Amino acid sequence: MAEPEALAESKPWESLLELARRGDATSLRQQVDALPEADRVHAFAHLAPEERGEVLALLDPERAAEVVASLPEAYAAEAMGELAPQAAAGILEELGSDARADLLGQLEAHEAEAILAEATPETAESVRTLLQYPPESAGGLMVTEYVAVPEDATVQEVVSHLRTHVERYAGYVVQYVYAAGPDGALRGVVPLRDLLLARGDRSIASILIRDPVCVRADASLDELFELFDRHAFLGLPVVADGKMLVGILRRQDVDAARVQRAEANQLKARGIVGGEELRSMPVLTRSARRLSWLSINIVLNVVAASVIALYQDTLQAVIALAVFLPIISDMSGCSGNQAVAVSLRELALGVTRPTEAMRVWTKEILVGCLNGLALGLLLASVAVLWKGNPTLGFVVGAALALNTVVAVSIGGTVPLLIKRLGYDPALASGPVLTTVTDMCGFFFVLSLATLVLPMLRG
Amino acid sequence: MAEPEALAESKPWESLLELARRGDATSLRQQVDALPEADRVHAFAHLAPEERGEVLALLDPERAAEVVASLPEAYAAEAMGELAPQAAAGILEELGSDARADLLGQLEAHEAEAILAEATPETAESVRTLLQYPPESAGGLMVTEYVAVPEDATVQEVVSHLRTHVERYAGYVVQYVYAAGPDGALRGVVPLRDLLLARGDRSIASILIRDPVCVRADASLDELFELFDRHAFLGLPVVADGKMLVGILRRQDVDAARVQRAEANQLKARGIVGGEELRSMPVLTRSARRLSWLSINIVLNVVAASVIALYQDTLQAVIALAVFLPIISDMSGCSGNQAVAVSLRELALGVTRPTEAMRVWTKEILVGCLNGLALGLLLASVAVLWKGNPTLGFVVGAALALNTVVAVSIGGTVPLLIKRLGYDPALASGPVLTTVTDMCGFFFVLSLATLVLPMLRG
Repeated sequence: MAEPEALAESKPWESLLELARRGDATSLRQQVDALPEADRVHAFAHLAPEERGEVLALLDPERAAEVVASLPEAYAAEAMGELAPQAAAGILEELGSDARADLLGQLEAHEAEAILAEATPETAESVRTLLQYPPESAGGLMVTEYVAVPEDATVQEVVSHLRTHVERYAGYVVQYVYAAGPDGALRGVVPLRDLLLARGDRSIASILIRDPVCVRADASLDELFELFDRHAFLGLPVVADGKMLVGILRRQDVDAARVQRAEANQLKARGIVGGEELRSMPVLTRSARRLSWLSINIVLNVVAASVIALYQDTLQAVIALAVFLPIISDMSGCSGNQAVAVSLRELALGVTRPTEAMRVWTKEILVGCLNGLALGLLLASVAVLWKGNPTLGFVVGAALALNTVVAVSIGGTVPLLIKRLGYDPALASGPVLTTVTDMCGFFFVLSLATLVLPMLRG
Repeated sequence: MAEPEALAESKPWESLLELARRGDATSLRQQVDALPEADRVHAFAHLAPEERGEVLALLDPERAAEVVASLPEAYAAEAMGELAPQAAAGILEELGSDARADLLGQLEAHEAEAILAEATPETAESVRTLLQYPPESAGGLMVTEYVAVPEDATVQEVVSHLRTHVERYAGYVVQYVYAAGPDGALRGVVPLRDLLLARGDRSIASILIRDPVCVRADASLDELFELFDRHAFLGLPVVADGKMLVGILRRQDVDAARVQRAEANQLKARGIVGGEELRSMPVLTRSARRLSWLSINIVLNVVAASVIALYQDTLQAVIALAVFLPIISDMSGCSGNQAVAVSLRELALGVTRPTEAMRVWTKEILVGCLNGLALGLLLASVAVLWKGNPTLGFVVGAALALNTVVAVSIGGTVPLLIKRLGYDPALASGPVLTTVTDMCGFFFVLSLATLVLPMLRG
């Protein structure tokens, strides 16, 4: 509870905006510099998109770029879209090549073009190169800051070149130097360490690693994850059209893509599936994205609940059953979702393949039987304690036990089948699971109850 | 559907085990080398822990270490535990310092000690150093492979030293050289690039970056994530007891910890909360871990459903309501979970703070009203179409609309409150949410129905 309430109440975003509107660039700069990064992100999150633009417009491009780079991508892109193209282009120059492409890729095409028209030709070309590739590919993740040297240069020449252009390469992640032929084709790589340890008069050709591991620009995220798991490289050259060097892919960018995917899956697991949501986005966008998921679910829910409508007479006779229907629906969902989680994890780790549904199923029914027994006994006891009717206990306990086995069977195998069909199992497994388990659960309780109705009433 | 069924049916794990049991080391080695990494991981996943030990025992330590490094950590640790301590120690020597500590940290203390007793003194010391720190801290994630040089050495001397010990440093990630005083205290860092570009007769002291950014060995994951977001470094020195250099923390290890946390949160979102589960683990362990979550949920479910029991007379009178109770419970859970997801994400991004529940709430009710209206109208139409009773439509539609607002309010704010209380919001938000929204949902439907009962019956 020792939260810095005082700080939260000082509302630094209000003073940022006020300084920007007053045109007081010096004080604004001082205030931005004085805010720790976490507070800066938090303050910018409290500004509306156009307000973020107002503040950025009054900062020098270098400082503005630093702020933009620290913001969540959606905010940063919005803010860039609010700036005058020339101001946005100034900030663009201060960003890394991949950040440039990521930001412009989120803008409308005409907004991005307006900014690129104001950028230097090299920057514009680099961004256009990167934007050719889908964001979730090697080309979309790579950077174009790399050092390429001719194969026939000597170590001494390369070191002198690096020394002379030390300014230009300051922002580069120079861990490797790439040797290219006169046609621009990749010939090999020289780790910086080897350059350091080699005698100055040796030629690059004599120390380079030939046929280095490289990656196609259109390689998918899954291929990249596997490649970087297998090799300890800090970066790999990216090639297109055979052997043309087009960029380098750094391990940190592949790692960032992996974090992003895991976070997207986390959102999907809770039903945010129509695209990222931050509460600063317009209400209608947020509502529409959430409804896209909810409206599918309500239809499936109605379908599942229609099973109950078939047994109205039984329910009428034993109204206590109505208390147990939502419990059985919810608990089966819980059990099934656990099995979904383990299947998604095993698929991601590569220890289970989409073809192995039978193997998964045999492993699930064991756990399903044990847990079904435990939960069924628990629920049966509740029913007996409440109504003193052992038959009611038997009906709801047996239904929950049976349905737990069904739920883990569906939950375990459905992700594999969805993956086999080429869809995203993190997205589709939940609704399939809950619909089927609800229908089965309602059927088990109500049909069992119908069978033993005389004893239930007694 | 173009799955490699033939390959899946060849069951490479069976032939690996057979070769190991026959003691045919040469063929076993060939077969291991012939399997692509993904197939090797998959094959080892199909072996029981003791079988994995049998296969590894017959491989040379280098190859065995390569296999161990590629397996999910839980499998790798199990397999190490099955090996004779001497064989395990041989494999240990071939692994990086952080992998060694991660594996031994998962074994029982006496198993780990038995293996360390067979390892070289340097390895044993390095592992013991790393195991002092919790796995989710800078000390637990760092590696002990770094190059420390005296401050008063010249560039030429350091380069010669690196050249002479090129074998020893082969497995190191030499991006920086660390300058330490005679007392072992960190004085500064020299990026490899600066070493390359500096003249040989300059002293390290004259080119080193003094007071470099460094990190305490006990720094938490959240501090590390923020630090590596803020700085572009590939690695940072880790210090303990003031300024003593104890290891280096590489960006890739921080990234890996971030992926791991996101994946753990993904599992939590679906109810795997008692610890990692792979289907090769013993059934009783798996069942017990899942039940730890399910048993809490069933109690909460019973509490929530007890609201229904209070309105048995109303239900008895209008049995159609029983069909809508599970729909309202499930849909409110969906809406609420979406709000939970957005709150968890905003907390992780730092754009929302645990103290800002009011702000979140004002943003949620807008979306809740819109979505509640849409879903309520939909469900009301279903009720009217089914029973031709507008009052029934009004009751279930209004209840769902109201409860959607409740659900997003709870879902949006509860993660902040749980975080403020110091608990894990990814874990506890779900059960709190569904219990409260179920109770409210049942109450809304049934109390509204009771109010308008004469018209409902009509």
